[in-house]
Amino acid sequence: MMQQPLVAGIDIGGTNIVYGLVTSEGKILTKGSMATALFPEIELLVKTVTDKIFQLLEDFPQHKLIGCGIGAPNGNFYTGNIEHAPNLVWKGIVPLASLFEKALGVKSVITNDANAAALGEMLFGSAKGLTDFILITLGTGLGSGIVTGGKLLYGHDGFAGELGHWIVKPGGRPCGCGRRGCLETYCSATGLVKTYKEITQTLAPVTAKEIYERALQYDMHALKAFEITGETLGLALANAVTVTSPQSFVFFGGLANAGEIVFKSLRLSFEKNLHIIYKNKVQLLLSSLNENDGAVLGAASLIWNEHA
Amino acid sequence: MMQQPLVAGIDIGGTNIVYGLVTSEGKILTKGSMATALFPEIELLVKTVTDKIFQLLEDFPQHKLIGCGIGAPNGNFYTGNIEHAPNLVWKGIVPLASLFEKALGVKSVITNDANAAALGEMLFGSAKGLTDFILITLGTGLGSGIVTGGKLLYGHDGFAGELGHWIVKPGGRPCGCGRRGCLETYCSATGLVKTYKEITQTLAPVTAKEIYERALQYDMHALKAFEITGETLGLALANAVTVTSPQSFVFFGGLANAGEIVFKSLRLSFEKNLHIIYKNKVQLLLSSLNENDGAVLGAASLIWNEHA
Repeated sequence: MMQQPLVAGIDIGGTNIVYGLVTSEGKILTKGSMATALFPEIELLVKTVTDKIFQLLEDFPQHKLIGCGIGAPNGNFYTGNIEHAPNLVWKGIVPLASLFEKALGVKSVITNDANAAALGEMLFGSAKGLTDFILITLGTGLGSGIVTGGKLLYGHDGFAGELGHWIVKPGGRPCGCGRRGCLETYCSATGLVKTYKEITQTLAPVTAKEIYERALQYDMHALKAFEITGETLGLALANAVTVTSPQSFVFFGGLANAGEIVFKSLRLSFEKNLHIIYKNKVQLLLSSLNENDGAVLGAASLIWNEHA
Repeated sequence: MMQQPLVAGIDIGGTNIVYGLVTSEGKILTKGSMATALFPEIELLVKTVTDKIFQLLEDFPQHKLIGCGIGAPNGNFYTGNIEHAPNLVWKGIVPLASLFEKALGVKSVITNDANAAALGEMLFGSAKGLTDFILITLGTGLGSGIVTGGKLLYGHDGFAGELGHWIVKPGGRPCGCGRRGCLETYCSATGLVKTYKEITQTLAPVTAKEIYERALQYDMHALKAFEITGETLGLALANAVTVTSPQSFVFFGGLANAGEIVFKSLRLSFEKNLHIIYKNKVQLLLSSLNENDGAVLGAASLIWNEHA
C-alpha cells in the first residue's frame, strides 16, 4: 500500500502550543494542544510534542510523516532558531528547528507566526492563487507576512515583514520593543483598549471583546475607538503599498473578526491615503481559514509550499 | 573576428535624454544627450535616438548591439510602457520599450529611473555583491529601487518601490501626486528648500546648492535645514527596514553629495529609530558611480542583469 504524505504543523505561542497533522490538501487530520508554561526547559517541550506526534501518527498507518513546520514568535527561517523572543520563556537563541529535526527524523523548518500564516493563506486560504500580498495578523499585537512574486519575503537576515514595529507616531505610546509610537501600540487588541481608555478617560479594566460588544450596541465611545484604529491602520497600509505593491491584504486574528466595525473606517482611510497609481487595485480580504486551525495550517505550509 | 556584445542605455528625464553604449563590465564606450523638449512627438524621439545609436555603433565595428535598457519616470517593466508620468510631455500610456525594440531590432526593456539605478549599483557600483538593499535617489524628488534576494522588487503591477510617496506627515506639505505629507516633499532638494524657507521665514528664492554652500560656512539656518531633512529621512528609512530587512541603503543624486552635512543627522536618526533586531546590521552607503554616468549605466543594467 502506498503511504500518503503528512506534515506536522506546530504553532508556538506565549500561552499555548498547538500541533497537528496536515495533508497536502490542507486538511488537519488530528491536533492537540498544551500550555506553554508547562515547559520551562525547551528540551522537555521538544520531547513531549514529538511523543504526541508519534502517538497521533499511529492512528494513520496509511500515512507517512515527511516534514515538520513550526511557527513561533521571532522564528528565523534562515537560522532555524527562535531569536530573543520577548514573550517566550526561553531566552536568547533556541535552535528549535534542529531540535525537532533530530527528534522527529524529518526535515524541520521554522519561521515567525505571521509568515507561517501568510503561507497558509496562499496555499489553503483567501490568498490562493495570489503572488503578491501582505498578511496582517490583528491580535494582542500586529504581525505581518509579506509575499512577493509568490515567495515569502525574508530579507537578508530572515526578519523582513515586521510592520507592527513601524513607528507611526514618533514619541507616541510605549511599545514592548523599547521604542515609542509603533503601529501595534495603536492597531491591535491592546491598542484598541488603550484608545478606548483615552477616549473615555477611564482607568477601569476593559477588554477588546467588551469594547466590540459595546460597539455592537452603538456605544459612541466604542465605535470611535474602532474608527481611530481603522484610520491609523488604513494610512499605514496605504504606505506599505508603496513598498511592495501587493494585490491584496489578508486580515487574520481576533480584531479582524470585528468585521465592518473596524473595516469601514479602515477601507475609507486606506483608499483616501492611497497614491493614485495604486487606486482600486488593492483588495482588502478577510482570512478564510478557521481561526483555531490557521496557525497549524500555516506552520505545515512551510513544508507543503516546497512540495507544490 | 568575434564581436563583443554591447548594450544601449537610455535615460529619459524631464529635462534631458542621455544615451550611451555600455560594455558587460559597465564601461561606457561613448554617449550623448539631447534636450527632452525637442521631442513633443514620441515617434520623433525614438527615431532620433535610434539614428544616434546606430551612428555611434559605426565607431565600434568589433562590437555588436544585443539589447537596449531604458530608465524613465513611471517606466513599467511588465508592460514596457511609460504610464501617466506627470513630469514628461508625453501624456497617458507610451509603449516606449516596444517602439525602441522595433526601431533598434534588439530586445528592449524599461523600468523607472530609480529601479534602473538600483540595478546599476548592484552590477557595477556600491551594491556589488549585495542581495538585499534599497537604493535612494535624492534629487528634485525622492526615488527608490528595492532589491530583495538579488532581484528588483516590482510588485504585482511593476510599481513597487515608491518610498518618496510614503505619507510621513498626514495633512503636511502638498505633493505633486495630489496628496499631502509625502516623504519627498521633505527629503529632496525641493524639500530642503521648503524647510530652509520655513526656518528663515523668507520668501526670497534660494536653491538647494546655495543652502549647501551656506551650510559649508556654518550658517545656522542652513545647517538646521539639513539636520531636519536627515532626521525625517532617518525615521522613514528605519521604518522601511521593517518591511524588506535590507543589508544596506545606497544613496545617489545631488543631495546625497552633501555628505556629512546631511548624513550626520540621518545616521543618528536612523540608528535611534531602528528596531533592536536590525541594529548595527544595516549599512548606509554612498553610490560609487559617477553621477553623470549612473543613469545610463543603470538603464543598460536592465539587459546586463539578465546576461549575468
